[in-house]
Amino acid sequence: MANSIDKFFMNMALELAERGKGFTSPNPMVGAVVVQNSDVIGTGYHKCAGGPHAEVNALNDAGELAKGATIYVTLEPCNHTGRTPPCTQKIMDSGIARVVVAMKDPNPDVTGGGIEFLREKGIQVDVGIEETQAARLNEVFAKYIQTQRPFVILKTAATLDGRIATRTGDSKWVTGPSARNFVHTVRHSVDGIMVGIGTVKQDNPSLTTRMEGLKTKDPIRIVLDTHLSISENARLLNIKSDAKTLLVTKRDAPLEKKHRLEKQGVTIIESQLKGRFIDLDELMYRLGAMKITSLLIEGGGRVAASALACRIVDKILFFYAPKILGGDDGVPICQGPGPDQMSDCIHLRDILVHRFDDDIMIEGYIRK
Amino acid sequence: MANSIDKFFMNMALELAERGKGFTSPNPMVGAVVVQNSDVIGTGYHKCAGGPHAEVNALNDAGELAKGATIYVTLEPCNHTGRTPPCTQKIMDSGIARVVVAMKDPNPDVTGGGIEFLREKGIQVDVGIEETQAARLNEVFAKYIQTQRPFVILKTAATLDGRIATRTGDSKWVTGPSARNFVHTVRHSVDGIMVGIGTVKQDNPSLTTRMEGLKTKDPIRIVLDTHLSISENARLLNIKSDAKTLLVTKRDAPLEKKHRLEKQGVTIIESQLKGRFIDLDELMYRLGAMKITSLLIEGGGRVAASALACRIVDKILFFYAPKILGGDDGVPICQGPGPDQMSDCIHLRDILVHRFDDDIMIEGYIRK
Repeated sequence: MANSIDKFFMNMALELAERGKGFTSPNPMVGAVVVQNSDVIGTGYHKCAGGPHAEVNALNDAGELAKGATIYVTLEPCNHTGRTPPCTQKIMDSGIARVVVAMKDPNPDVTGGGIEFLREKGIQVDVGIEETQAARLNEVFAKYIQTQRPFVILKTAATLDGRIATRTGDSKWVTGPSARNFVHTVRHSVDGIMVGIGTVKQDNPSLTTRMEGLKTKDPIRIVLDTHLSISENARLLNIKSDAKTLLVTKRDAPLEKKHRLEKQGVTIIESQLKGRFIDLDELMYRLGAMKITSLLIEGGGRVAASALACRIVDKILFFYAPKILGGDDGVPICQGPGPDQMSDCIHLRDILVHRFDDDIMIEGYIRK
Repeated sequence: MANSIDKFFMNMALELAERGKGFTSPNPMVGAVVVQNSDVIGTGYHKCAGGPHAEVNALNDAGELAKGATIYVTLEPCNHTGRTPPCTQKIMDSGIARVVVAMKDPNPDVTGGGIEFLREKGIQVDVGIEETQAARLNEVFAKYIQTQRPFVILKTAATLDGRIATRTGDSKWVTGPSARNFVHTVRHSVDGIMVGIGTVKQDNPSLTTRMEGLKTKDPIRIVLDTHLSISENARLLNIKSDAKTLLVTKRDAPLEKKHRLEKQGVTIIESQLKGRFIDLDELMYRLGAMKITSLLIEGGGRVAASALACRIVDKILFFYAPKILGGDDGVPICQGPGPDQMSDCIHLRDILVHRFDDDIMIEGYIRK
């Protein structure tokens, strides 16, 4: 069924979809291409949440020419009226003869509905072309729509012997500029970024997205700060950013400081504890309810280990710099108790290796 | 000067050279190809120490046809009578018109001599074709001939968070079969393999080379055992192997046990200490004097850190398995004190990344 021409146009649609990265949440990234006799007569993508869907943009671009044409769309067209009318209706009204879909809508409440509707109306629908790529592109959307919890990416940057900082806490710099630039593209693509209070005290980061010459978006900054011990002068509380800052504390955090911080524009989330630490599993439901569909965890070792231990992590991005600390007194990638047996490790799948100059990034998904 | 035809035949010679891997020490690996009018009329390589040199094998293969031909040889032909007569004489006697050399002999006592002799005799000599590859192929020989110390390779196998074993010492298995098979090709290629007594007690390894269906060589087994605390039942003391076992101890190790072990065929080296540990820097001179030109260090974390700290390591092979231990109680890649500043790390150059199924190997050279 899937021939190379279909794959070619679907890849074009996937590339279009990616242009929406960082701006479509909580919607998926979607691209569409309208083709008549092997000529592209219309293209479109979902540019931002609330804006028109990809199919609408592509069909408007094609205009009258869409009659009898094929539309390639990276995700099953919607069949329900949301902020915009259903795309299936628009496809029908345009006189499209064939619809090629990369993947079904992962939303269990609507999956298959759009395809079924179109087929009932006599339109040919082919599903599953470049499905793997489409699924990877919208892994965040799929996780969120199915679980109402954010898709969680754990990022670390360490020496080859697994240290994210020296014994004095020095971590400037582990990786080089090109790896650090890539991290900013990840920050741009996610809804939230989370660190522990230790990282705030040690590095005083801004946690903003900085990509020269590009229009970017800051993720919501989330700091795990059980005892509300953050300095009111911390950089991330005092920067100019469209994104807000959340502090996650235990329920009986100091009231006066809490009020002062709230007046400063900070949102405080009082969370239950699990042992001595914030219950990250419960927190994910809270963040999901706030429409945070994706979360980048950037440090430090204790937060990384806790996040892994309570199984909230979906994907890892582990950077390794071409250097060796050479000692065991530096800060490890994971701080906390580990298992007795090597076979009880957390296993990863779909490993990819990337290079950023001499830095190496290992990407993988947690096996669940 | 270097054209693509010269590169083509030099690469053929380099591939031939590699066939000698594991058998030529303390000599270099050398390959040679004799070419007449773009036809290969003779090939040869140095098969084992004491056997004929590559040029001799290739010229004998070519026979009378060598007259007026070009010989490609991966290393400058020798000009001195060793265990075999000088290759320069053989080249001259064969009527070779042109000699193409990848790299000069790295031995400072003889470098350039062979090339000079041939040029004096009116033979055209071109030097430097595929020099980088030739230098990498014989990095061991170059280091040894220039310093009389072994070329040291440090190998580790860890989880992505940098643990070579769990808190109970379990390390079976970190990496998978394909990565472990590759380690056996490295064992085959080196003269010596070294571990700490901790690894012997924990893992009871044999430290032999096991490659199914291939003729291989065991490296000399070297155990750092300051207090001579090894069990006389340790597997590596009781295996069938053509290679011997060395135990490195402090000077006043228990005499009676020492004699018993020596009767068992074990060689004991009494070494000076540096602090509480064997002085590895001094040991390298001792091993060099024993014609150990290359040494693979396989574990554990304390030996790795000591070897790095005293700067004896030339090259690292760090394996990472697609798994995360998730805690800081496992055995780290390096055990010992590290620096205060990230900028004081040990830096690596010429990084290469290899994959063995889902395991990743990072290869690099220590910047000196």
